[in-house]
Amino acid sequence: MNLKDYIRDIPNFPKEGIIFKDITTLLKDAGALKESIRQMAEPFRDKGITKVCGIESRGFIFGMPLAIELNAGFVPIRKEGKLPWTKISQEYVLEYGTDRIEIHKDAIEDGEKTLVVDDLLATGGTAEASLKLLAKLNANVVGFAFLIELEFLNGRKLIENQVEELTALFKY
Amino acid sequence: MNLKDYIRDIPNFPKEGIIFKDITTLLKDAGALKESIRQMAEPFRDKGITKVCGIESRGFIFGMPLAIELNAGFVPIRKEGKLPWTKISQEYVLEYGTDRIEIHKDAIEDGEKTLVVDDLLATGGTAEASLKLLAKLNANVVGFAFLIELEFLNGRKLIENQVEELTALFKY
Repeated sequence: MNLKDYIRDIPNFPKEGIIFKDITTLLKDAGALKESIRQMAEPFRDKGITKVCGIESRGFIFGMPLAIELNAGFVPIRKEGKLPWTKISQEYVLEYGTDRIEIHKDAIEDGEKTLVVDDLLATGGTAEASLKLLAKLNANVVGFAFLIELEFLNGRKLIENQVEELTALFKY
Repeated sequence: MNLKDYIRDIPNFPKEGIIFKDITTLLKDAGALKESIRQMAEPFRDKGITKVCGIESRGFIFGMPLAIELNAGFVPIRKEGKLPWTKISQEYVLEYGTDRIEIHKDAIEDGEKTLVVDDLLATGGTAEASLKLLAKLNANVVGFAFLIELEFLNGRKLIENQVEELTALFKY
């Protein structure tokens, strides 16, 4: 089973000149889905991870099964205004303007070994913001697990020296 | 383990007079997380489900592990403009104005046994819209699995006679 064959290229989405990597063709195949979770979890099995953070909303898709696979709890990192309880927030820069991600103040204990999950590593802006956010909770961020890394965007450079392990199943 | 104890009440969120059911306190506990997925999957184990749909974004949180648990594929039902390929769309009415959910046209085969997952059944508007959406793909929607049902809002009435099984782990 070559998992990469399950990813569909969509030319010119969300805008002209970009080839979007559509993961829905992988998700809808029960076998490919299970195998991709197994492979994403592999490098983190012996790391003592107790919390897995998923970044809204596609990070939820892979974060939850990884949490279960690693016997960890799941923590959603959400867009502004969505979390109901006391929270910590972190701003980050977009192509036009800024955005903000948030986490509950009681989501992670001091020094807890944490894995951050998202579907895509592109420019690394959200991933870097998640590191800053988690630093405010004194989380010990052991690594990042992405499904896809767009290597030509160099997002890895922003974050890789701050964690033990940064993995992506598919690189383009 | 009384799973309901892991849900946290947040008074006056998102607005005055509403008691919000915060599920992050359940999600972050590895044991409660696993047990809630096991219990949500239970009524559907012998139903021959091959596709599990999760409604963006908190339906992704429970939809993915349920898909894996039931050996099914996962299909995201997303908000407008997020899906990259050819899609089907369904409008529904909100308190103020309307909203729209979408699904890829090739997400589900004709007659495929499908389970729809979301964290919360409130007024049932989104759930009903997902039924209409899935009818356009000729999916065979066997049931709904919710984590929480707010019974006093009567959302169940809109959808329960159209499916074999409608379950919620916690009722209020």
